[in-house]
Amino acid sequence: MDEGVQVMEELTPVEVAVIGGGFSGMAAARRLREAGRDVMVLEARDRVGGRIWDPELEDGRTVLLGGQWISKTQTRMCELGEEFGLTQFTTARPGRSLLHTGSDFAPIPDHLPADSELDKVVAEFEAMAETVPVDAPWKAPKANQWDGKTLYSWLEKRVSAELLESMTVTIMGYMSQPEDVSLLHALFYTRANGGFGSLFSMGQEDAHDTHVFEEGAQRITEGICAELGDRVRLNSTVFKIFRDDDGVRILGEGFELRAKRVIMAMPPALTACLRYDPPLTGMRNSLTQRAHMLGRGLKFILMYERPFWRDAGLSGQMLGTQGPVHVGIDSTPDHERWAVLAGFVEDRGAGREFLDMSESDRQKSIVEFLVPAFGEETRSFVSYHEHDWGQDDLARGCVTVFGTSAWTNYGAALREPVGRIHWAGTETSTEYPGQMEGAVRAGERAAGEVLKVMPAEC
Amino acid sequence: MDEGVQVMEELTPVEVAVIGGGFSGMAAARRLREAGRDVMVLEARDRVGGRIWDPELEDGRTVLLGGQWISKTQTRMCELGEEFGLTQFTTARPGRSLLHTGSDFAPIPDHLPADSELDKVVAEFEAMAETVPVDAPWKAPKANQWDGKTLYSWLEKRVSAELLESMTVTIMGYMSQPEDVSLLHALFYTRANGGFGSLFSMGQEDAHDTHVFEEGAQRITEGICAELGDRVRLNSTVFKIFRDDDGVRILGEGFELRAKRVIMAMPPALTACLRYDPPLTGMRNSLTQRAHMLGRGLKFILMYERPFWRDAGLSGQMLGTQGPVHVGIDSTPDHERWAVLAGFVEDRGAGREFLDMSESDRQKSIVEFLVPAFGEETRSFVSYHEHDWGQDDLARGCVTVFGTSAWTNYGAALREPVGRIHWAGTETSTEYPGQMEGAVRAGERAAGEVLKVMPAEC
Repeated sequence: MDEGVQVMEELTPVEVAVIGGGFSGMAAARRLREAGRDVMVLEARDRVGGRIWDPELEDGRTVLLGGQWISKTQTRMCELGEEFGLTQFTTARPGRSLLHTGSDFAPIPDHLPADSELDKVVAEFEAMAETVPVDAPWKAPKANQWDGKTLYSWLEKRVSAELLESMTVTIMGYMSQPEDVSLLHALFYTRANGGFGSLFSMGQEDAHDTHVFEEGAQRITEGICAELGDRVRLNSTVFKIFRDDDGVRILGEGFELRAKRVIMAMPPALTACLRYDPPLTGMRNSLTQRAHMLGRGLKFILMYERPFWRDAGLSGQMLGTQGPVHVGIDSTPDHERWAVLAGFVEDRGAGREFLDMSESDRQKSIVEFLVPAFGEETRSFVSYHEHDWGQDDLARGCVTVFGTSAWTNYGAALREPVGRIHWAGTETSTEYPGQMEGAVRAGERAAGEVLKVMPAEC
Repeated sequence: MDEGVQVMEELTPVEVAVIGGGFSGMAAARRLREAGRDVMVLEARDRVGGRIWDPELEDGRTVLLGGQWISKTQTRMCELGEEFGLTQFTTARPGRSLLHTGSDFAPIPDHLPADSELDKVVAEFEAMAETVPVDAPWKAPKANQWDGKTLYSWLEKRVSAELLESMTVTIMGYMSQPEDVSLLHALFYTRANGGFGSLFSMGQEDAHDTHVFEEGAQRITEGICAELGDRVRLNSTVFKIFRDDDGVRILGEGFELRAKRVIMAMPPALTACLRYDPPLTGMRNSLTQRAHMLGRGLKFILMYERPFWRDAGLSGQMLGTQGPVHVGIDSTPDHERWAVLAGFVEDRGAGREFLDMSESDRQKSIVEFLVPAFGEETRSFVSYHEHDWGQDDLARGCVTVFGTSAWTNYGAALREPVGRIHWAGTETSTEYPGQMEGAVRAGERAAGEVLKVMPAEC
């Protein structure tokens, strides 16, 4: 703790302040800079990238500790990857994938059996999703009914307890726990992300969300940061936004910044961590309180000398509901100079106690848990890495989940500017929300909004 | 906006800091002070009372703009009212109450017809509520099933669309919109508040939540504030709480305060408006994001010379789903030197557009809406007053509503201290949560927790 009287630094005013240096904020700032505008990014962390965090180790290995997947259909991310010279590989591996049944591991079929109970439920769900307009989910024909209930309520009436459990696993990996999400949001999210397809085609090259940048996607935000130079200010937590007829005054930890307009580039739930004077609208307040973060606990990375599990015909993928590990996946780069098993622990079931352990106990538990799946060699890892996004004060969770009644009662406030405050963040995208691609598109959309209302001569 | 470099004021350290000067914070601070502890209340507003706000007009009338109802079974509030010399009156009025049907007003029966569809549903609901332990709702036998769905899902399967609409009205007045609340929370809240009884016995003296302090309950917090003197600091918004082995450092707007421990006396959703270093637990983060505020728009007060509606045999009460007014109630003190029609506007249906109007247009709309209910004399009001709690940056809504999966996945974090941070606020009470009574009890419980871990000699 620092002692004594503190002084607030008053920064040189700018035209546009961008709060948040993740993909959305950096994409917005870049677009504004390209248009010749004077911009400043305020980032609370000591790095850019937000929920994308890919530290490089001293020996050259990169550890992908946050979001990592894109798909070939995510064109802005593919373009940015190319522009910054990144290499893609795919995690859609051939071989057997495994389901943890609570006591043991069993193979998962590559394809959903046609006409099975699950196949029918997925077909019904996708047909419903087709009726949801991605730019206004509250206008779906049955919006009120679907937004008044959870995905759990809908599934409970259609599938057995056993099948509900396996649906829970797939949905967890994809977006949420079914009791935590509005049915309407699940339909919107599925449609806006191109369908459920990838969930049941784990080994297929054409599945969604299977491509990864070997060097880490964070390099893109670092590249933009280098372009912007001193227009990115790290370690700059923002507390409060004042507005008047002239512009905004942004009050942060030890500094103040004036701007004409501000772009908030963070998840809706995190925009609620700031104070506003005058206040935001009641609609916006109510929305941010219902668009909560999935409290997924932790991503871990186990690094090996080689992907030994492939010898036994395994894809490296596993799913399970009981925990501690709920998802495991082979994330080895194509050059195979090192091998990677990545995985997620949820804060439910055995995962919960696990999150209270010390890091070394967690590492031991994960390895012991995975030995029956991948064999004794699982113990011979080179290094272990982890990050708990739910315990991270500047993330407060992983992906955003809309609870019941959020879309129908308050959804119209998602992108609507409040005076001089504009909203970016992947959650505001109608295409690939929740993904890096959505973040980039939302940032560029918000920058366009600002450019429209703020012609160059003003 | 102020110009120039700002200086942070460093306040004299205290033993216990209480953040929030509503009923819960003031009750906690008083209890600590009585035990001889050095305490400081930090309140962001320019007044104490929180969501209880009862300004006095120059001519001596008091306008109750926030929470106002208690019941005879709320013993701590009755004691405090007596201690500070307040006078109770009841809003349980004889006479006809009215239901707005969308186009007209129709009388509501005083009692629920026995064996009616509604009677059966209420009986089933109350029987379920009896199985929910108020100190640990997640331990109810069917907790996971009930917390996985909304009250709406449950009602939808049991009642007709017409009845669902009238249930919605009663539930709105009581706690929430049925699509916005977990069934488990609705059961918990109903049980912890003594049952559904009051909802269907509007004219009965023995109903819950019918008593009101004529002078305004805010007087109690002002009385405590006077006792505490300079230990209450108004206009003191808190932004961030740092913790280390010695205590906490509280960073606010223009000031810093060190303390050994801190009591957070505000709704869970508002505790999420602060930053924490080190971060709170993931459990606590996830809970606060799912315990959102009901975004009820606005409370209005129409004052008259006399309660003229009583001449026509009307109770002064009305309910309706379509808006703009969803609830109206005769809130005239017993001395009848002035008469009061109080009411609420929700941010749904016609209420939503209404909230976008100017104050004078709102006043006109409310009066026009109420004329068919109470007659032409409705136009002859002496004064109109309103406050929109959903647009209030320091309230961000009205009462707290737990969304699905909040209790079962994260409920254990509701009262559990995080290091040196203790949690008060009416939402943490097992008796009368959501009420002033719950706030007082929760504040006193949190003070007791601090006294236990912080013996007088430390």
